[in-house]
Amino acid sequence: MNIDVKLAPQSPEVWGYKDKTVVVIDVLRASSTIITALENGARAVVPVLTPDEAVTLKSRYDSENVLLGGERGGLKVQGFDLGNSPLEYKKEVVEGKTIVFTTTNGTNAIRQSGSADNLLIGAYLNLEAVVKKALELDKDILLFCAGRQNGFALEDAACAGAFCAAVLRMAQVKESDSAKAARMIAASFDSTFASFMASEHGQLLERLGFSDDLKLAATFNSCKAVPISINGQLVLSNTKKPR
Amino acid sequence: MNIDVKLAPQSPEVWGYKDKTVVVIDVLRASSTIITALENGARAVVPVLTPDEAVTLKSRYDSENVLLGGERGGLKVQGFDLGNSPLEYKKEVVEGKTIVFTTTNGTNAIRQSGSADNLLIGAYLNLEAVVKKALELDKDILLFCAGRQNGFALEDAACAGAFCAAVLRMAQVKESDSAKAARMIAASFDSTFASFMASEHGQLLERLGFSDDLKLAATFNSCKAVPISINGQLVLSNTKKPR
Repeated sequence: MNIDVKLAPQSPEVWGYKDKTVVVIDVLRASSTIITALENGARAVVPVLTPDEAVTLKSRYDSENVLLGGERGGLKVQGFDLGNSPLEYKKEVVEGKTIVFTTTNGTNAIRQSGSADNLLIGAYLNLEAVVKKALELDKDILLFCAGRQNGFALEDAACAGAFCAAVLRMAQVKESDSAKAARMIAASFDSTFASFMASEHGQLLERLGFSDDLKLAATFNSCKAVPISINGQLVLSNTKKPR
Repeated sequence: MNIDVKLAPQSPEVWGYKDKTVVVIDVLRASSTIITALENGARAVVPVLTPDEAVTLKSRYDSENVLLGGERGGLKVQGFDLGNSPLEYKKEVVEGKTIVFTTTNGTNAIRQSGSADNLLIGAYLNLEAVVKKALELDKDILLFCAGRQNGFALEDAACAGAFCAAVLRMAQVKESDSAKAARMIAASFDSTFASFMASEHGQLLERLGFSDDLKLAATFNSCKAVPISINGQLVLSNTKKPR
Protein backbone atom coordinates (compact mmCIF):
# COMPACT_ATOMS: atom_id res chain seq x y z
CA MET A 1 0.00 0.00 0.00
CA ASN A 2 1.18 3.50 -0.85
CA ILE A 3 0.49 6.74 0.98
CA ASP A 4 0.72 10.10 -0.74
CA VAL A 5 -0.19 13.68 0.15
CA LYS A 6 -1.49 16.39 -2.13
CA LEU A 7 -0.09 19.38 -0.24
CA ALA A 8 -2.19 21.91 -2.16
CA PRO A 9 -4.90 21.72 -4.80
CA GLN A 10 -3.68 21.09 -8.34
CA SER A 11 -5.50 20.52 -11.57
CA PRO A 12 -7.19 17.10 -11.20
CA GLU A 13 -5.57 15.69 -14.36
CA VAL A 14 -2.19 15.91 -12.61
CA TRP A 15 -3.36 13.49 -9.91
CA GLY A 16 -4.90 10.09 -10.40
CA TYR A 17 -7.73 9.08 -8.09
CA LYS A 18 -8.24 5.64 -9.61
CA ASP A 19 -7.99 2.76 -7.15
CA LYS A 20 -7.41 5.18 -4.31
CA THR A 21 -8.97 6.13 -1.03
CA VAL A 22 -8.86 9.91 -0.94
CA VAL A 23 -9.10 11.65 2.44
CA VAL A 24 -9.99 15.32 2.12
CA ILE A 25 -8.51 17.43 4.91
CA ASP A 26 -9.71 20.97 5.54
CA VAL A 27 -9.12 20.97 9.25
CA LEU A 28 -10.03 24.68 9.63
CA ARG A 29 -12.89 24.14 9.36
CA ALA A 30 -14.92 22.31 6.72
CA SER A 31 -13.70 18.80 7.60
CA SER A 32 -14.15 19.38 11.32
CA THR A 33 -17.65 20.74 10.75
CA ILE A 34 -18.80 17.91 8.44
CA ILE A 35 -17.52 15.31 10.92
CA THR A 36 -19.30 17.05 13.81
CA ALA A 37 -22.57 17.27 11.86
CA LEU A 38 -22.62 13.53 11.08
CA GLU A 39 -21.42 12.63 14.59
CA ASN A 40 -24.40 14.57 15.93
CA GLY A 41 -26.91 12.74 13.77
CA ALA A 42 -27.24 14.72 10.53
CA ARG A 43 -28.62 12.42 7.81
CA ALA A 44 -26.18 13.71 5.18
CA VAL A 45 -23.98 16.65 4.23
CA VAL A 46 -24.24 17.59 0.56
CA PRO A 47 -21.19 19.57 -0.60
CA VAL A 48 -21.85 22.20 -3.27
CA LEU A 49 -19.57 24.80 -4.81
CA THR A 50 -21.56 28.02 -4.43
CA PRO A 51 -24.21 29.59 -2.22
CA ASP A 52 -26.52 29.85 -5.27
CA GLU A 53 -26.14 26.12 -5.94
CA ALA A 54 -26.99 25.48 -2.28
CA VAL A 55 -30.21 27.50 -2.44
CA THR A 56 -31.27 25.84 -5.71
CA LEU A 57 -30.59 22.39 -4.33
CA LYS A 58 -32.54 23.06 -1.13
CA SER A 59 -35.59 24.01 -3.18
CA ARG A 60 -35.56 20.53 -4.75
CA TYR A 61 -35.64 18.76 -1.40
CA ASP A 62 -38.35 18.48 1.24
CA SER A 63 -37.06 21.74 2.62
CA GLU A 64 -38.31 21.22 6.18
CA ASN A 65 -35.51 18.75 6.81
CA VAL A 66 -32.82 20.66 4.97
CA LEU A 67 -30.46 23.24 6.43
CA LEU A 68 -28.10 25.49 4.51
CA GLY A 69 -24.60 25.70 5.96
CA GLY A 70 -21.29 27.23 5.02
CA GLU A 71 -19.12 30.30 4.85
CA ARG A 72 -17.54 32.89 2.67
CA GLY A 73 -14.60 34.85 4.11
CA GLY A 74 -14.93 32.71 7.23
CA LEU A 75 -18.42 34.09 8.00
CA LYS A 76 -21.89 32.56 7.62
CA VAL A 77 -23.41 33.11 4.18
CA GLN A 78 -26.28 35.60 4.35
CA GLY A 79 -29.62 33.81 4.61
CA PHE A 80 -28.04 30.48 5.59
CA ASP A 81 -29.10 28.55 8.69
CA LEU A 82 -25.58 27.73 9.82
CA GLY A 83 -22.03 28.95 9.26
CA ASN A 84 -18.87 26.86 9.19
CA SER A 85 -18.31 26.58 12.94
CA PRO A 86 -18.47 22.97 14.21
CA LEU A 87 -19.90 24.35 17.46
CA GLU A 88 -23.10 25.33 15.66
CA TYR A 89 -23.76 21.77 14.47
CA LYS A 90 -25.23 20.52 17.74
CA LYS A 91 -27.39 17.42 18.01
CA GLU A 92 -30.59 19.40 18.66
CA VAL A 93 -29.95 21.42 15.50
CA VAL A 94 -28.80 18.83 12.97
CA GLU A 95 -30.26 15.46 14.00
CA GLY A 96 -32.12 13.90 11.07
CA LYS A 97 -31.37 16.87 8.81
CA THR A 98 -29.67 17.09 5.45
CA ILE A 99 -27.12 19.91 5.37
CA VAL A 100 -26.44 21.53 2.01
CA PHE A 101 -22.97 22.87 2.58
CA THR A 102 -20.59 25.23 0.79
CA THR A 103 -17.21 26.57 1.89
CA THR A 104 -14.39 28.40 0.13
CA ASN A 105 -11.86 25.59 0.00
CA GLY A 106 -13.19 22.38 1.49
CA THR A 107 -16.21 21.71 -0.68
CA ASN A 108 -14.14 22.50 -3.77
CA ALA A 109 -11.59 19.86 -2.78
CA ILE A 110 -14.39 17.35 -2.13
CA ARG A 111 -15.93 17.94 -5.54
CA GLN A 112 -12.51 17.72 -7.23
CA SER A 113 -12.03 14.26 -5.68
CA GLY A 114 -15.35 12.91 -6.93
CA SER A 115 -13.72 10.23 -9.07
CA ALA A 116 -11.92 8.58 -6.17
CA ASP A 117 -12.80 4.96 -5.39
CA ASN A 118 -13.48 6.02 -1.82
CA LEU A 119 -13.71 9.59 -0.62
CA LEU A 120 -13.49 10.18 3.14
CA ILE A 121 -13.40 13.35 5.22
CA GLY A 122 -10.65 13.59 7.83
CA ALA A 123 -9.54 15.91 10.61
CA TYR A 124 -7.99 15.53 14.06
CA LEU A 125 -11.50 14.93 15.47
CA ASN A 126 -11.78 11.55 13.72
CA LEU A 127 -8.18 10.74 12.82
CA GLU A 128 -8.03 7.28 14.34
CA ALA A 129 -11.40 6.23 12.92
CA VAL A 130 -10.47 7.42 9.42
CA VAL A 131 -7.09 5.67 9.51
CA LYS A 132 -8.77 2.40 10.50
CA LYS A 133 -11.38 2.81 7.79
CA ALA A 134 -8.80 3.67 5.12
CA LEU A 135 -6.70 0.63 6.02
CA GLU A 136 -9.81 -1.57 5.93
CA LEU A 137 -10.63 -0.27 2.44
CA ASP A 138 -7.20 -1.59 1.40
CA LYS A 139 -6.42 0.86 -1.43
CA ASP A 140 -3.57 3.32 -1.85
CA ILE A 141 -4.24 6.36 0.35
CA LEU A 142 -4.10 9.94 -0.92
CA LEU A 143 -4.46 12.67 1.68
CA PHE A 144 -5.76 15.77 -0.10
CA CYS A 145 -5.08 19.05 1.72
CA ALA A 146 -7.82 21.48 0.71
CA GLY A 147 -5.46 24.38 1.37
CA ARG A 148 -6.41 27.97 0.96
CA GLN A 149 -7.17 30.02 -2.12
CA ASN A 150 -5.91 27.17 -4.27
CA GLY A 151 -2.61 27.26 -2.41
CA PHE A 152 -0.84 25.66 0.53
CA ALA A 153 -2.20 25.85 4.10
CA LEU A 154 0.15 24.97 6.93
CA GLU A 155 -2.59 23.58 9.20
CA ASP A 156 -3.83 21.10 6.59
CA ALA A 157 -0.31 19.90 5.78
CA ALA A 158 0.40 19.36 9.49
CA CYS A 159 -2.88 17.42 9.85
CA ALA A 160 -1.99 15.28 6.81
CA GLY A 161 1.35 14.60 8.48
CA ALA A 162 -0.42 13.38 11.62
CA PHE A 163 -2.47 11.02 9.43
CA CYS A 164 0.69 9.71 7.72
CA ALA A 165 2.34 9.10 11.09
CA ALA A 166 -0.73 7.22 12.34
CA VAL A 167 -0.91 5.06 9.21
CA LEU A 168 2.81 4.24 9.48
CA ARG A 169 2.30 3.13 13.08
CA MET A 170 -0.47 0.73 12.03
CA ALA A 171 0.63 -0.69 8.67
CA GLN A 172 3.46 -1.33 6.26
CA VAL A 173 3.09 1.42 3.68
CA LYS A 174 5.37 3.12 1.17
CA GLU A 175 5.54 6.87 1.68
CA SER A 176 5.85 9.42 -1.11
CA ASP A 177 8.12 12.46 -0.85
CA SER A 178 5.15 14.62 0.10
CA ALA A 179 4.03 12.18 2.81
CA LYS A 180 7.51 12.41 4.36
CA ALA A 181 7.37 16.20 4.11
CA ALA A 182 3.96 16.32 5.78
CA ARG A 183 5.26 14.21 8.68
CA MET A 184 8.22 16.56 9.05
CA ILE A 185 5.87 19.55 9.17
CA ALA A 186 3.64 17.85 11.77
CA ALA A 187 6.65 16.88 13.89
CA SER A 188 7.80 20.52 13.96
CA PHE A 189 4.90 21.51 16.23
CA ASP A 190 4.47 20.81 19.92
CA SER A 191 0.71 20.57 19.47
CA THR A 192 -2.02 20.67 16.86
CA PHE A 193 -3.17 23.97 18.32
CA ALA A 194 0.33 25.40 17.80
CA SER A 195 0.12 24.47 14.12
CA PHE A 196 -3.14 26.41 13.87
CA MET A 197 -1.65 29.47 15.51
CA ALA A 198 1.37 29.39 13.17
CA SER A 199 -0.89 29.31 10.11
CA GLU A 200 -2.29 32.31 8.26
CA HIS A 201 -5.76 30.79 8.32
CA GLY A 202 -5.69 30.00 12.02
CA GLN A 203 -4.57 33.54 12.76
CA LEU A 204 -7.41 34.91 10.63
CA LEU A 205 -10.00 32.76 12.40
CA GLU A 206 -8.73 33.92 15.76
CA ARG A 207 -9.06 37.54 14.65
CA LEU A 208 -12.62 36.79 13.50
CA GLY A 209 -13.45 35.50 17.02
CA PHE A 210 -13.41 31.75 16.36
CA SER A 211 -10.89 30.76 19.07
CA ASP A 212 -13.26 28.12 20.41
CA ASP A 213 -13.44 26.52 16.97
CA LEU A 214 -9.65 26.29 16.93
CA LYS A 215 -9.62 24.60 20.33
CA LEU A 216 -12.31 22.13 19.24
CA ALA A 217 -10.67 21.33 15.88
CA ALA A 218 -7.33 20.70 17.64
CA THR A 219 -8.83 17.80 19.64
CA PHE A 220 -7.81 14.26 18.70
CA ASN A 221 -10.33 11.46 18.24
CA SER A 222 -13.38 12.84 20.00
CA CYS A 223 -15.55 11.59 17.09
CA LYS A 224 -16.15 8.14 15.62
CA ALA A 225 -17.88 9.50 12.52
CA VAL A 226 -16.14 8.77 9.21
CA PRO A 227 -17.91 10.74 6.48
CA ILE A 228 -17.83 8.93 3.13
CA SER A 229 -19.13 10.17 -0.21
CA ILE A 230 -21.96 8.09 -1.68
CA ASN A 231 -23.58 9.47 -4.82
CA GLY A 232 -22.36 12.98 -4.04
CA GLN A 233 -23.61 12.97 -0.44
CA LEU A 234 -21.43 12.65 2.62
CA VAL A 235 -22.88 10.09 5.00
CA LEU A 236 -21.62 7.99 7.89
CA SER A 237 -19.54 5.11 6.60
CA ASN A 238 -20.50 1.63 7.69
CA THR A 239 -18.00 -0.41 9.53
CA LYS A 240 -17.89 -2.74 6.51
CA LYS A 241 -16.85 -1.87 2.97
CA PRO A 242 -19.41 0.48 1.46
CA ARG A 243 -18.85 -0.87 -2.07
CA MET B 1 9.20 42.18 1.81
CA ASN B 2 7.38 38.86 1.57
CA ILE B 3 8.80 35.41 0.97
CA ASP B 4 6.70 32.59 -0.43
CA VAL B 5 7.39 29.07 -1.72
CA LYS B 6 5.64 27.24 -4.49
CA LEU B 7 6.16 23.70 -3.22
CA ALA B 8 5.12 22.07 -6.50
CA PRO B 9 4.14 23.31 -9.95
CA GLN B 10 0.59 24.59 -10.28
CA SER B 11 -1.25 26.19 -13.14
CA PRO B 12 0.40 29.62 -13.59
CA GLU B 13 -2.90 31.51 -13.24
CA VAL B 14 -3.04 30.40 -9.60
CA TRP B 15 0.20 32.22 -8.83
CA GLY B 16 1.04 35.83 -9.54
CA TYR B 17 4.55 36.67 -10.70
CA LYS B 18 4.00 40.40 -10.97
CA ASP B 19 6.43 42.50 -8.96
CA LYS B 20 8.25 39.40 -7.79
CA THR B 21 11.70 37.91 -7.95
CA VAL B 22 11.16 34.25 -8.74
CA VAL B 23 13.95 31.78 -7.91
CA VAL B 24 13.55 28.48 -9.73
CA ILE B 25 14.94 25.54 -7.75
CA ASP B 26 15.52 22.19 -9.40
CA VAL B 27 18.45 21.18 -7.26
CA LEU B 28 18.65 17.67 -8.82
CA ARG B 29 19.90 18.68 -11.27
CA ALA B 30 18.86 21.40 -13.72
CA SER B 31 19.55 24.35 -11.40
CA SER B 32 22.89 22.94 -10.30
CA THR B 33 23.88 22.31 -13.92
CA ILE B 34 22.87 25.75 -15.23
CA ILE B 35 24.78 27.44 -12.38
CA THR B 36 27.87 25.32 -13.08
CA ALA B 37 27.72 26.07 -16.82
CA LEU B 38 27.64 29.85 -16.28
CA GLU B 39 30.22 29.67 -13.49
CA ASN B 40 32.52 27.92 -15.96
CA GLY B 41 32.15 30.58 -18.62
CA ALA B 42 29.21 29.54 -20.80
CA ARG B 43 27.86 32.62 -22.62
CA ALA B 44 24.22 31.67 -21.98
CA VAL B 45 21.90 28.77 -21.23
CA VAL B 46 18.72 28.81 -23.29
CA PRO B 47 15.95 26.76 -21.66
CA VAL B 48 13.56 25.00 -24.06
CA LEU B 49 10.76 22.56 -23.41
CA THR B 50 11.56 19.67 -25.76
CA PRO B 51 14.53 18.02 -27.47
CA ASP B 52 12.95 18.86 -30.86
CA GLU B 53 12.74 22.53 -29.91
CA ALA B 54 16.41 22.37 -28.88
CA VAL B 55 17.52 20.95 -32.23
CA THR B 56 15.46 23.50 -34.17
CA LEU B 57 16.85 26.37 -32.11
CA LYS B 58 20.44 25.23 -32.56
CA SER B 59 20.00 25.26 -36.34
CA ARG B 60 19.15 28.98 -36.14
CA TYR B 61 22.36 29.87 -34.28
CA ASP B 62 25.96 29.88 -35.42
CA SER B 63 26.05 26.23 -34.49
CA GLU B 64 29.80 26.05 -33.89
CA ASN B 65 29.37 27.84 -30.60
CA VAL B 66 26.20 26.06 -29.53
CA LEU B 67 25.93 22.87 -27.50
CA LEU B 68 22.81 20.85 -26.86
CA GLY B 69 22.34 19.79 -23.25
CA GLY B 70 19.73 18.05 -21.17
CA GLU B 71 18.05 14.83 -20.14
CA ARG B 72 15.03 12.65 -20.38
CA GLY B 73 14.55 9.99 -17.71
CA GLY B 74 17.74 11.30 -16.08
CA LEU B 75 19.88 10.32 -19.10
CA LYS B 76 21.45 12.40 -21.89
CA VAL B 77 19.15 12.94 -24.85
CA GLN B 78 20.30 10.94 -27.88
CA GLY B 79 22.40 13.09 -30.21
CA PHE B 80 22.96 15.80 -27.59
CA ASP B 81 26.45 17.04 -26.67
CA LEU B 82 25.85 17.01 -22.92
CA GLY B 83 23.47 15.46 -20.40
CA ASN B 84 22.22 17.02 -17.17
CA SER B 85 25.21 16.27 -14.96
CA PRO B 86 26.91 19.43 -13.66
CA LEU B 87 30.21 17.50 -13.81
CA GLU B 88 30.04 17.50 -17.62
CA TYR B 89 29.87 21.30 -17.82
CA LYS B 90 33.60 21.90 -17.36
CA LYS B 91 35.34 25.13 -18.34
CA GLU B 92 37.12 23.55 -21.29
CA VAL B 93 33.80 22.28 -22.63
CA VAL B 94 31.43 25.23 -22.10
CA GLU B 95 33.54 28.42 -22.09
CA GLY B 96 32.13 30.92 -24.57
CA LYS B 97 29.39 28.53 -25.67
CA THR B 98 25.62 28.90 -25.72
CA ILE B 99 23.92 25.84 -24.24
CA VAL B 100 20.45 25.03 -25.54
CA PHE B 101 19.07 23.08 -22.61
CA THR B 102 16.02 20.91 -21.93
CA THR B 103 15.15 18.85 -18.87
CA THR B 104 12.01 17.12 -17.66
CA ASN B 105 11.08 19.46 -14.83
CA GLY B 106 13.50 22.37 -14.53
CA THR B 107 13.16 23.99 -17.93
CA ASN B 108 9.39 23.69 -17.69
CA ALA B 109 9.42 25.60 -14.38
CA ILE B 110 11.68 28.25 -15.90
CA ARG B 111 9.40 28.76 -18.87
CA GLN B 112 6.34 28.89 -16.59
CA SER B 113 7.94 31.73 -14.66
CA GLY B 114 8.67 33.84 -17.73
CA SER B 115 6.42 36.69 -16.60
CA ALA B 116 8.32 37.28 -13.34
CA ASP B 117 9.95 40.68 -12.89
CA ASN B 118 13.21 38.88 -12.16
CA LEU B 119 13.83 35.20 -12.72
CA LEU B 120 16.88 33.68 -11.03
CA ILE B 121 18.16 30.12 -10.82
CA GLY B 122 19.07 28.83 -7.37
CA ALA B 123 20.59 25.75 -5.76
CA TYR B 124 22.88 25.02 -2.82
CA LEU B 125 25.87 25.77 -5.09
CA ASN B 126 25.00 29.48 -5.27
CA LEU B 127 22.61 29.93 -2.35
CA GLU B 128 24.36 32.85 -0.69
CA ALA B 129 24.92 34.71 -3.97
CA VAL B 130 21.25 34.31 -4.98
CA VAL B 131 19.98 35.45 -1.59
CA LYS B 132 22.14 38.59 -1.79
CA LYS B 133 20.97 39.26 -5.34
CA ALA B 134 17.31 38.71 -4.49
CA LEU B 135 17.53 41.09 -1.52
CA GLU B 136 19.29 43.67 -3.71
CA LEU B 137 16.45 43.44 -6.28
CA ASP B 138 14.09 44.44 -3.44
CA LYS B 139 10.92 42.68 -4.61
CA ASP B 140 8.83 39.99 -2.93
CA ILE B 141 10.59 36.64 -3.30
CA LEU B 142 8.89 33.51 -4.63
CA LEU B 143 10.91 30.30 -4.48
CA PHE B 144 9.52 27.98 -7.15
CA CYS B 145 10.29 24.29 -6.59
CA ALA B 146 10.36 22.62 -9.99
CA GLY B 147 9.37 19.32 -8.39
CA ARG B 148 8.94 16.12 -10.28
CA GLN B 149 6.35 15.05 -12.81
CA ASN B 150 4.29 18.13 -11.96
CA GLY B 151 4.31 17.09 -8.31
CA PHE B 152 6.23 17.63 -5.11
CA ALA B 153 9.93 16.75 -4.77
CA LEU B 154 11.38 16.55 -1.27
CA GLU B 155 14.87 17.71 -2.30
CA ASP B 156 13.58 20.93 -3.89
CA ALA B 157 11.37 21.75 -0.90
CA ALA B 158 14.32 21.24 1.47
CA CYS B 159 16.49 23.49 -0.70
CA ALA B 160 13.76 26.16 -0.75
CA GLY B 161 13.70 25.91 3.04
CA ALA B 162 17.43 26.55 3.18
CA PHE B 163 16.89 29.66 1.05
CA CYS B 164 14.10 30.87 3.36
CA ALA B 165 16.29 30.37 6.41
CA ALA B 166 19.13 32.31 4.76
CA VAL B 167 16.84 35.18 3.77
CA LEU B 168 15.42 35.35 7.32
CA ARG B 169 18.95 35.60 8.73
CA MET B 170 19.72 38.56 6.47
CA ALA B 171 16.50 40.59 6.30
CA GLN B 172 13.14 41.39 7.86
CA VAL B 173 10.67 39.44 5.73
CA LYS B 174 7.15 38.09 6.17
CA GLU B 175 6.95 34.36 5.60
CA SER B 176 4.01 32.57 4.00
CA ASP B 177 2.70 29.25 5.32
CA SER B 178 4.63 27.40 2.63
CA ALA B 179 7.86 29.24 3.46
CA LYS B 180 7.50 28.11 7.09
CA ALA B 181 6.78 24.56 5.92
CA ALA B 182 9.85 24.54 3.67
CA ARG B 183 12.04 25.64 6.59
CA MET B 184 10.59 22.84 8.72
CA ILE B 185 11.38 20.32 6.00
CA ALA B 186 14.95 21.63 5.63
CA ALA B 187 15.48 21.57 9.40
CA SER B 188 14.44 17.90 9.51
CA PHE B 189 17.64 16.83 7.76
CA ASP B 190 21.14 16.63 9.18
CA SER B 191 22.61 17.54 5.80
CA THR B 192 21.64 18.51 2.27
CA PHE B 193 22.96 15.16 1.10
CA ALA B 194 20.61 13.39 3.55
CA SER B 195 17.67 15.24 1.98
CA PHE B 196 18.74 13.93 -1.43
CA MET B 197 18.98 10.37 -0.18
CA ALA B 198 15.51 10.58 1.42
CA SER B 199 13.96 11.76 -1.85
CA GLU B 200 12.61 9.55 -4.62
CA HIS B 201 14.55 11.52 -7.22
CA GLY B 202 17.84 11.33 -5.33
CA GLN B 203 17.41 7.59 -4.92
CA LEU B 204 16.73 7.24 -8.66
CA LEU B 205 19.82 9.25 -9.58
CA GLU B 206 21.95 7.10 -7.29
CA ARG B 207 20.60 3.96 -8.96
CA LEU B 208 21.44 5.51 -12.36
CA GLY B 209 25.06 5.99 -11.21
CA PHE B 210 25.03 9.74 -10.54
CA SER B 211 26.31 9.63 -6.93
CA ASP B 212 29.01 12.17 -7.74
CA ASP B 213 26.36 14.60 -9.00
CA LEU B 214 24.55 14.26 -5.69
CA LYS B 215 27.72 15.02 -3.75
CA LEU B 216 28.44 18.05 -5.92
CA ALA B 217 24.87 19.42 -5.78
CA ALA B 218 24.88 19.09 -1.98
CA THR B 219 27.76 21.59 -1.68
CA PHE B 220 26.99 25.06 -0.33
CA ASN B 221 28.22 28.23 -2.00
CA SER B 222 31.01 26.90 -4.22
CA CYS B 223 29.71 29.15 -7.06
CA LYS B 224 29.25 32.91 -7.35
CA ALA B 225 27.19 32.64 -10.55
CA VAL B 226 23.60 33.91 -10.31
CA PRO B 227 21.80 32.97 -13.52
CA ILE B 228 19.15 35.52 -14.49
CA SER B 229 16.71 35.36 -17.37
CA ILE B 230 17.10 38.15 -19.93
CA ASN B 231 14.96 37.83 -23.06
CA GLY B 232 14.52 34.11 -22.52
CA GLN B 233 18.21 33.40 -22.05
CA LEU B 234 19.88 32.63 -18.73
CA VAL B 235 23.01 34.70 -18.31
CA LEU B 236 25.22 35.80 -15.44
CA SER B 237 23.52 38.55 -13.49
CA ASN B 238 25.46 41.77 -13.01
CA THR B 239 26.13 42.92 -9.51
CA LYS B 240 23.82 45.87 -10.21
CA LYS B 241 20.14 45.75 -11.02
CA PRO B 242 19.64 44.30 -14.50
CA ARG B 243 16.51 46.38 -15.15
